[in-house]
This record gives sequence, C-alpha cells and structure tokens, in this order.
Amino acid sequence: MSPEADSSDSPRQPLLSADEFVRLCDEQLPFARLIGMQVERFTWESVALRAIFNTDFLRPGGTVSGPVMMTLADAAMFGAVLARKGPLALAVTTNLSIDFLRKPAPTDVVATAQLLKLGKRLAVGDILIHSAQDDALVARATATYSLPNS
Amino acid sequence: MSPEADSSDSPRQPLLSADEFVRLCDEQLPFARLIGMQVERFTWESVALRAIFNTDFLRPGGTVSGPVMMTLADAAMFGAVLARKGPLALAVTTNLSIDFLRKPAPTDVVATAQLLKLGKRLAVGDILIHSAQDDALVARATATYSLPNS
Amino acid sequence: MSPEADSSDSPRQPLLSADEFVRLCDEQLPFARLIGMQVERFTWESVALRAIFNTDFLRPGGTVSGPVMMTLADAAMFGAVLARKGPLALAVTTNLSIDFLRKPAPTDVVATAQLLKLGKRLAVGDILIHSAQDDALVARATATYSLPNS
Amino acid sequence: MSPEADSSDSPRQPLLSADEFVRLCDEQLPFARLIGMQVERFTWESVALRAIFNTDFLRPGGTVSGPVMMTLADAAMFGAVLARKGPLALAVTTNLSIDFLRKPAPTDVVATAQLLKLGKRLAVGDILIHSAQDDALVARATATYSLPNS
Repeated sequence: MSPEADSSDSPRQPLLSADEFVRLCDEQLPFARLIGMQVERFTWESVALRAIFNTDFLRPGGTVSGPVMMTLADAAMFGAVLARKGPLALAVTTNLSIDFLRKPAPTDVVATAQLLKLGKRLAVGDILIHSAQDDALVARATATYSLPNS
Repeated sequence: MSPEADSSDSPRQPLLSADEFVRLCDEQLPFARLIGMQVERFTWESVALRAIFNTDFLRPGGTVSGPVMMTLADAAMFGAVLARKGPLALAVTTNLSIDFLRKPAPTDVVATAQLLKLGKRLAVGDILIHSAQDDALVARATATYSLPNS
Repeated sequence: MSPEADSSDSPRQPLLSADEFVRLCDEQLPFARLIGMQVERFTWESVALRAIFNTDFLRPGGTVSGPVMMTLADAAMFGAVLARKGPLALAVTTNLSIDFLRKPAPTDVVATAQLLKLGKRLAVGDILIHSAQDDALVARATATYSLPNS
Repeated sequence: MSPEADSSDSPRQPLLSADEFVRLCDEQLPFARLIGMQVERFTWESVALRAIFNTDFLRPGGTVSGPVMMTLADAAMFGAVLARKGPLALAVTTNLSIDFLRKPAPTDVVATAQLLKLGKRLAVGDILIHSAQDDALVARATATYSLPNS
C-alpha cells in the first residue's frame, strides 16, 4: 500500500500469479468457480475478475442477479489481498457492503478491486463492477478482510 | 401493511405460499438454486431459508464461504418482501451489507429475514444467519429493496 | 466474555459505571456531548443513550438530522464496548453503517447498543434508535470497533 | 449524471451557489454548522467541504472523532444532491456507511462527495475524507439519499 516502501523504479509484482490465483480458487473457493470466473488483470495495484455470463445469472427483469455480483466482488477483493500478502495468507471477509446502481445487461460483468487500506490486521478494499457490454458502472462495493495470522 | 391495519384476530397470511416461492426461485433465481435452498418458514412476519451444505460451500479454513451466506440472505429478504407484496411484485436489491461474525461449521446455514420497514418505495430488512449445527449467529445482514412499481 | 463463562447466578456488572462513562465522554468525546447525551441504561448486556432534543437537531422536514443519530449510535456502541472491556480499553470505530427507517418526530431519540460479537480484535454491535415520543424504530445501525491493545 | 445529456461545450453549473448552500445549511442544518463547515468546491461534478478543526473534534487517541467525519460526509453528499436537483429539492438520507481507514491528525478534514447514481428516486454518492495536513485518505463513505418529491 505504501509506495515509499518500494525504493526501486520497477513496479511491484504481485506475490502470486494470475494462474496461481485461478488454481487456488478452483481448489479452495468452489462457489466462486460457479460464476465462471476469468482473470482480466492481476497486479500489485488491482485485480479485475470477469464473470462469464450464463443464464443461471439471470433474475427477474432480465438482469444479472445480485449474488453473482457479490460473489465476484468478494473474489476480486480476495485476489487483491493475496496479491499483496501471498498465497498462504489467511484472509477472511468481515464485512461486505454493496450498492446496486444500474441494472446490468444480461452479459459478462467485471469486478475491479483496489485496496484502500492494508493494515496489519485489516484490509479494506473498493470494488467497482462494470457491465462488459457498455462499461457502465453497475455496482460498487466495499469489503473488509481480517488478516488473522499477520 | 402494518399489523394494526388488520383488525381481525387471525394472523395475516403471506401473499404467496412457500411452494409458490420455491417454484418462483427455481424459475427466476437460478443462482440461488445453486445453494440447495429449502424453506424453513414462510410467514407474513418472517421468512427463513436453509442452504443444504455441500462441499462447494467450503472456503479456506474449512468454513462456509461468504458468497453462500450473501446469496441466502438476499433470497430470504426477497421472500420476506414477496410475502407482503405478492408474487408479481417488482423488487430489486439496492443495497446489501453483511457482517460475518463467526466462522460457521461446515454444515447447513439458515437465514431468517424480517422487514424493518415496508414503505411505498423501499423495504429494509434484517437478516440473521445461524449455523444449523449449534444455532450460533454467524452473520447479520441488512438489505434494502426498491419497489419500482408500487 | 460469553454469559456461559459466568457460572454464578448474579448478573455480570459492567466494568465501569454509567457515571464514569458520562465523565469519560465529557472529558474525551466533546462532540458527543454536543447532543446533550443522557444515559438510560448501562449494563453488561446493553447500553442505551438518550439525546435530549434541542432545535439544533432539526433538519429540513422538521425531523431529527441523521448526524445526531449517527453520533448517538456511535457513542452507545462505545459504551457497550467499554462496559465489557473497561474504561481504559482502546476502541476505535472501523465501520458504521446506518439505515434511516422513519422520520423521527422533533423530540428525544434513544439509541440502544448490544454487542453481536466481542472478539479479541473486533467488536460488532447492533444499535437500534427509537423516537422517545412513540417508541417507533427510526433507525438501525451496525458498528465495528477495532480493539488495538487487546 | 449523464454527460450525454449536455450537448454544449460549457460545463454544467450547479443549481445553487456555494453561498446559497452555506446559507441553507446555516438555516436548516444547525448540527452540521457545529463542525465549522467551509465550502472548498461546489460544482456540478463534486462538492468538497472542510471541517475547521477545533478541540471539540478530538476523541481518545488525539484524533478527529468519527461523528465529525460522518456529519461532514452527510453534508457533502447533501450538497452534491442539491447541486444537481436545486435548493428546493427534498432529499433525505436513507443509508450511510463509512469505513475509517487511518487516524486523522488533529487538524482540518475535507470531505469530497461525487454522485455514483442520480435516479428518479434515489441518489447514491461516494464520499472521500482526507486529512488537510498530509492529504491522506482517512475515511471513505457511501450514502444513499431518497428523493421523495421527484
């Protein structure tokens, strides 16, 4: 979180790769896998995950259901924490609050998580969810993770 | 909508039955169906839904993942709104905020939703999530639904 | 900290008295003092604080302003944490989320805080705010406190 | 909210001036006045308000208390809504959720509100709070306002 900790000119690398994150989710977060998650970006600064649309996503009104977006938001935040703390970090959600702003079209949605704070005990992240169709902001979430073994 | 509006001694009946709610979810909320949802109680006052544990629920730490509980909480709130507004009501989540209080054991969880407010435009509900193993309170959520066609 | 940890029949006593809490707020929480706070109940189980109405509370619509209720909710939660951890505890708010349910009449409001969780690092509390006029539930909040020196 | 609605090259003007907003707060939001609020920016796009530090702001730890920041956040959001809807708009907070990220130094804090959504019935805004000392982000809030007479 603190750029000053990095005296070099080279950008910081995440402490696991996108592939390692996907494997870890496949093995350890089966529910997230149900949304057909794909990594769009996996960097020190932010993590973006795409949920590949399928008709299981739909809710009345022909739009993507809230739980799909909540699941994606939580997974993106988990990625953003692991990118900084490494694949072995313990990290559990303590709070997630989401506002649904616009009805997403029945297509892919992309959640982008960035840490607002990475403390010794708590990480707080901002998650923006856009529709892949028109890039409209469809939801915004804030998540807090506890880091028990830090 | 307030109890005092009901001068009779008989308790108010929900505007759809538990079976109708299950059918509606099967048809219209496929993502919620993924958690193996079962109705525990479906009344005018509150709606309780159980997620039947399967290993897809697990997350690191051997506990039930947050998205399972968020999905269940949102579905229970949806039920509580429809119980009062009827099966044809439009009702969309505008905000959901959840606090995870204790790690649930790897077993069923039950979400119980009660409306704190049912206005013309907005409904606000309290959702408590208990572990079916020991009845411990494992999470608490607040959800706001918009009622667009009211 | 759990009631079952107390094998005696006598109820647990809070680790500071209502008077000590008032004195502590007077000295250390001057902003809370601005709402003319009065202790209604100060026990191990819950803390209720009353904001004595004055015209500074008003907002457009002739109702009590949100910040008055947020200030009162935060102070009640602070009391509920100190009742269990003692007057010397460090305890800082990390999140507060409040839903305003009904317009309170221009009169006193009472916030009642109860802990949903008291862990080593985090406390989560439920805060209900009622109008003193008709006892209507006017707002409901959830607050998380970090306990840095535990 | 929708740039496309504005075909001209000139930037949109807020529907009331900073001075009118200050006067309106002085008359109608006395509690907000207690924090010694000053307008830093009042535009169509965003509203920034500064709370001029005084010792009433302090809480244990020598930092600015949460209620000061919540009051400032709510007032900034109110300004952002009025800038788009005009001084006569009815606008009431339905939810405010705030995360406290870092302890602010005992000095001024500035809250900047931007609308994420401005619908017919609801407005949702993002509010960032920075310390005036070092421009550190000290808190982030999300607020929802209901627009009853729209």
